[in-house]
Amino acid sequence: MDNYSIVGKPIPHLDAVEKVKGNAVFTSDIKLNGMLFGKILRSSVPHAKIRNIDISQAVKLKAVRAVITSKDTPLVRYSISPTWADKLVLADQKVRYIGDEIAAVAAVDEESAEEALSLIRVDLEELPGVYDPFEAMQSEAPLLHDGIVSNISKTLRMECGSVAEGFARSDIIMEDTFKTHAQSHCSIETHCCVATCSATDEVNLWVTTQAPHPLRQRLAMTLKIDVAKIHIMTPFIGGGFGSKIDLEPAQAISVLLAKKTGKPVKIEHSRKEQFIATRMRHPTVTHLKFGVKHDGTIIAKQANVVMDNGAYNSHGPAVLAYNNVMFSTLYRVNNIKYEGRLVYTNKNWGGACRGYGDPQASFAQEVMLDMIAERINMDPIDLRLKNANIPNQVTANAVKITSCGLKECLTEARKVSGWRTKKAAGKKYRGLGIASMIYTGGGSIGSGLNYSGATMQMNPDGTLQLLMGALDIGQGSNTILTQMAAEIMAVEPETIRLTTADTDTTFPCMGTFGSRVTYCGGKAVVEAANGLKKKVLENAAEMLEANPDDLEMKNKSIFVMGTPEKAVTYAEIGASSFYKKKEPLVAHGYYNGPEVSPDFDPVTYKGYPAPALVFGTHLAEVEVDPTTGKVEVLNFVAAHDLGRAINPLLVEGQIEGGAVQGIGWSLMEDVKFENGEILNPNFHDYKMLTIKDIPKIIPLMIETIDPNGPFGAKGIGECAMVPTAPAIINAIYDAVGVRIKELPATSEKIFKGLKEKRSK
Amino acid sequence: MDNYSIVGKPIPHLDAVEKVKGNAVFTSDIKLNGMLFGKILRSSVPHAKIRNIDISQAVKLKAVRAVITSKDTPLVRYSISPTWADKLVLADQKVRYIGDEIAAVAAVDEESAEEALSLIRVDLEELPGVYDPFEAMQSEAPLLHDGIVSNISKTLRMECGSVAEGFARSDIIMEDTFKTHAQSHCSIETHCCVATCSATDEVNLWVTTQAPHPLRQRLAMTLKIDVAKIHIMTPFIGGGFGSKIDLEPAQAISVLLAKKTGKPVKIEHSRKEQFIATRMRHPTVTHLKFGVKHDGTIIAKQANVVMDNGAYNSHGPAVLAYNNVMFSTLYRVNNIKYEGRLVYTNKNWGGACRGYGDPQASFAQEVMLDMIAERINMDPIDLRLKNANIPNQVTANAVKITSCGLKECLTEARKVSGWRTKKAAGKKYRGLGIASMIYTGGGSIGSGLNYSGATMQMNPDGTLQLLMGALDIGQGSNTILTQMAAEIMAVEPETIRLTTADTDTTFPCMGTFGSRVTYCGGKAVVEAANGLKKKVLENAAEMLEANPDDLEMKNKSIFVMGTPEKAVTYAEIGASSFYKKKEPLVAHGYYNGPEVSPDFDPVTYKGYPAPALVFGTHLAEVEVDPTTGKVEVLNFVAAHDLGRAINPLLVEGQIEGGAVQGIGWSLMEDVKFENGEILNPNFHDYKMLTIKDIPKIIPLMIETIDPNGPFGAKGIGECAMVPTAPAIINAIYDAVGVRIKELPATSEKIFKGLKEKRSK
Repeated sequence: MDNYSIVGKPIPHLDAVEKVKGNAVFTSDIKLNGMLFGKILRSSVPHAKIRNIDISQAVKLKAVRAVITSKDTPLVRYSISPTWADKLVLADQKVRYIGDEIAAVAAVDEESAEEALSLIRVDLEELPGVYDPFEAMQSEAPLLHDGIVSNISKTLRMECGSVAEGFARSDIIMEDTFKTHAQSHCSIETHCCVATCSATDEVNLWVTTQAPHPLRQRLAMTLKIDVAKIHIMTPFIGGGFGSKIDLEPAQAISVLLAKKTGKPVKIEHSRKEQFIATRMRHPTVTHLKFGVKHDGTIIAKQANVVMDNGAYNSHGPAVLAYNNVMFSTLYRVNNIKYEGRLVYTNKNWGGACRGYGDPQASFAQEVMLDMIAERINMDPIDLRLKNANIPNQVTANAVKITSCGLKECLTEARKVSGWRTKKAAGKKYRGLGIASMIYTGGGSIGSGLNYSGATMQMNPDGTLQLLMGALDIGQGSNTILTQMAAEIMAVEPETIRLTTADTDTTFPCMGTFGSRVTYCGGKAVVEAANGLKKKVLENAAEMLEANPDDLEMKNKSIFVMGTPEKAVTYAEIGASSFYKKKEPLVAHGYYNGPEVSPDFDPVTYKGYPAPALVFGTHLAEVEVDPTTGKVEVLNFVAAHDLGRAINPLLVEGQIEGGAVQGIGWSLMEDVKFENGEILNPNFHDYKMLTIKDIPKIIPLMIETIDPNGPFGAKGIGECAMVPTAPAIINAIYDAVGVRIKELPATSEKIFKGLKEKRSK
Repeated sequence: MDNYSIVGKPIPHLDAVEKVKGNAVFTSDIKLNGMLFGKILRSSVPHAKIRNIDISQAVKLKAVRAVITSKDTPLVRYSISPTWADKLVLADQKVRYIGDEIAAVAAVDEESAEEALSLIRVDLEELPGVYDPFEAMQSEAPLLHDGIVSNISKTLRMECGSVAEGFARSDIIMEDTFKTHAQSHCSIETHCCVATCSATDEVNLWVTTQAPHPLRQRLAMTLKIDVAKIHIMTPFIGGGFGSKIDLEPAQAISVLLAKKTGKPVKIEHSRKEQFIATRMRHPTVTHLKFGVKHDGTIIAKQANVVMDNGAYNSHGPAVLAYNNVMFSTLYRVNNIKYEGRLVYTNKNWGGACRGYGDPQASFAQEVMLDMIAERINMDPIDLRLKNANIPNQVTANAVKITSCGLKECLTEARKVSGWRTKKAAGKKYRGLGIASMIYTGGGSIGSGLNYSGATMQMNPDGTLQLLMGALDIGQGSNTILTQMAAEIMAVEPETIRLTTADTDTTFPCMGTFGSRVTYCGGKAVVEAANGLKKKVLENAAEMLEANPDDLEMKNKSIFVMGTPEKAVTYAEIGASSFYKKKEPLVAHGYYNGPEVSPDFDPVTYKGYPAPALVFGTHLAEVEVDPTTGKVEVLNFVAAHDLGRAINPLLVEGQIEGGAVQGIGWSLMEDVKFENGEILNPNFHDYKMLTIKDIPKIIPLMIETIDPNGPFGAKGIGECAMVPTAPAIINAIYDAVGVRIKELPATSEKIFKGLKEKRSK
């Protein structure tokens, strides 16, 4: 029964007023007594041996309290998985990209810390660098890491069915190569942390992170500190988009400096540091080969992917696996082959970035489908409908799909956009493009770990508290999860007191990534709230001498159905349980799933255990200026199967934000490198959409009510980024016949394409 | 079985290093962005009508952000109980003592706030004041409060048995009057708070409090804010001694100022404010009448007490009831009569202060016993032994005693002090005095509310977290309660991660007062730890395929008894439960007791439901300088029945601290008034003991192992204050034959006594 009173309602962010009024406290706002400021000396060359670091002049500076180098660290390498560990908190022996951490300083003010950095003398022996992954794979290429025989960090091969046989049975074979580029997350808040570390190694860390509990583990491992001594707290977070999942060297450095000085130490990244020395979206080169029947049935598909890792692994190997699993799982295809290589280069390293390898896969596959549709003279939407995933499907690569609304996304987007009419009208320089996507709707990185916990409590005064490990990084999960709890407890969401993501007081949670919070956090909250509701109803039944099944909850009271005057208030129940029965009213919820099948391959992610999968279709309408090649996105329909929209207003926000970030990546956002150096590490030279560039975005919410999701919901956060680029690229082709196969689709490239076309 | 490895060990304070190094964060250390400073305008006259308050000049000051008066408050009166409510956060119509809050200012710095105060024009119509409770009881006395017919705030009458009959059966009747004076708590940290209040009324309050959860309730009530919107956090606390239990007007004012300005507001009391405008120990005049047999048996006792309340109630009515219950319960006496009156005067108001009415009772009763012993020519210790309470006694006033070591305290103190030898030697100007006490060993204010909660959790990595509502105000409860948890979980206490007293994340707790934390907090922690231990053992049994009863815990592992190689570590159990079984390892403990019998009289506290009662005996040896009357305390034996010493080092600290505070009250500490004005509101004129004045204190711990206490423990915090004064006063009499009946026993009084004696 779907007659919910709070779930499904478009409630504004619970913290909106606090943020709008400027009262919300972010990490940057934190000032502690005697707090020092930390700054990091970074490599200015892309590849070099460190011969010597002379800190003698820097430590003499009066305002300086500590200078540290790798000698002050336990020299433990890390990444998101111990098997891929390759990064030191401070470089030892070698630097591998412009931005690599060499030394750090704590001083009483930022200016003195900067001055001290300038006094550190680093004696470097420059080494040849390699910046292109194909060059890096050559045998003569300089190797980035000790003990490796090739710069290929990971090779991934998977075949399901037989592509050879599939291609043989196909009517048409199409092949092409698609390139994507680096994108910076551009969170409005840069990385910031404030650390204290007591004489007995007790660490307090206020930090901009998406994953407090894993960060605690990684900090402990990297610094060789007992994990129980680390307390991580998360003030308000100004966006993440994947950039704040990892341990950031600055976080470990702030703890080391705090330990050495005995004072709190704050390190806040400048925007430039955010560009040059935090992660970015991995560039890829994808060669695709598709075999199809004349009727559009895809018989076989094959991808060869080279992914530019940059200098260190971070999430790279998992991003590559996700690239495979998302490419391979979308559409019903029996014969699939995927070969991927992740290659070190002397550049800023890639990491998790909204979509996690999927936008790259989606761009290649969805543009390819457009090319196929043209070749076989089929409507691109019909082609996708023909091959679309269906509910309860098990794919060739052994992924189990529960709910699936891909077909509904396609047909709804077609209907709402006026696709047929507009296509038929064929207005000059105008075009429509479509692209679809699949993604996890609830995290799961294949390790079997995908946990979220929640505790729900009724206080003696009848008020409610919700403690959860999940955290809101701006996407609105605090509001969404509170709505779920409020629905179950029949109260207004704003009356529930919330505590999130504090490693001392909340249950462990993997964090905010993988579009997992609504699903995993939601399941934990629903379990906790239902547990509490049961206890509260049992108490009420006792007090009212009634059967719990005959009770109804309303207005913070519980009454016997049909006899509203026979009621007890929550305050009475709380007081009675705490003070008379002496039993605290508390319940827990904990989710960690789904089970990982023994057939799951942790290298290729074949048999990937998604708790739920989400689907979506983006449909873009663009106009191209033939004299300049400039693209204007006129209309944008984004249909998403999200199970259930717990809060349509916040879902709209996610869809709009994802679409905008996707349009940026498609048309202008581009981290430009020259010999390993980033040329545009600022918001002047790195172009993002402004409010004037943003088209009308029509979000369509396809509610498939997932059988396992909390209230049937699935995740949405990353999805709206994924199919944006191919939708736009396909629309550009529809408009002017220029096919962009290398992102971004700048005016220059389109203008060049138009010129070439005219000259033919 | 008492073979404990952590309970009973003298472990130093877990936070000692942090405090000694100056890294511990107290409320005063907290600085928030844009924080304003609040200052309070207080009445400079003892009694007046407020005709008008003109803030027009103050608000014009550039640095001032808000000025508030009673008009900005909801005019809700408060005290610790709604039935006694008489205090407004800001005075309206009338001021009743020098210090009464009239208006408050928030400014960008303290100096500007002070300047603004000086610009507020208060038009007062002075009224006659009354400063002596006996004068205040006269019919012509000015009345302090509206609608009252007398300044007597509370009258308390109790009779058990029949004193008339008892006195008739007695061989000897003795009567006398004893006076006590005001004492300031003199916590090293003054009251301080930092408040934020969002546009939607969400309050964050960092505050020096002994009772965060009750404070939350009182703030909500007084400011008419939803209790669920208030978040109270307690940084390190620098002592309380009862002064930080109440809602302090400054706390509510800081919230009001934060709400009005939209900025964080800090208010920190000066030491002068701490003296003149926070609570103090109630002065009393106690007239006693005792009827005894020649053999020392006390047949009947009667007390008439007049307690000086000051201008407002605070804890006054409960302190008076405690004065009765402690007077009446100590010793086995069948016929008891108590008559007490609590009287308003135009002075700073009394409140909870270590001992809570008991030191006043103990002083009168124990000096009286010394006089009786002399009269009947009996050893004072033998007299007390004759009448001492015994285990499992139900007293004439219906109080149930469980464990009782009063006789052991008396005999041990006699033995260790060399009482008999020294008494026999009779060295000139030297004397020995003895006094005993009874007190609650676990809180309970008679309302039936005496709650403490705890949560204990094993993390996926096998580390342990303890969350509890109780808080450490310097006495060491964090260490004590962690020891209990560590004993049960077989780990080192410092490895347990602790979170205390945060209203958002910990179970409700009444707070730190009434010597209740070891007992009530301990019971909650023991229940939580045992609950967790059970779950952990069940998990281990499953993993080891063994019976839980055959398992042993050691070194963060669990192994099969006799087969130490068959073991699982806590980390393995944590990981297995969270990641495989998907069940969080968490358990709760909650105590709220004991039951209040229907026969309990909430006015007189007859039938007072103490969870446990503690007993003690102080034995002082003094030398009096006959030329000056100066008293030197040479030796001090303090024997206390505390059930079990969970941490003897910290118990010693409590006993020494209590004895010193008691000696101070006996000999020098004295809040001196003249027409309602405190003459010595500073540490120069208000004399306290310095390190040179402190005698050798020998603590004797009598472990009676209470049947209900956690590990058999009972509270100790306040006890060591209680019988100090009479022990010293009795020793002075023994030394020089001068009987002090009005505290403090200044050199002047003793010198006068010596002179009078010589002149006789």
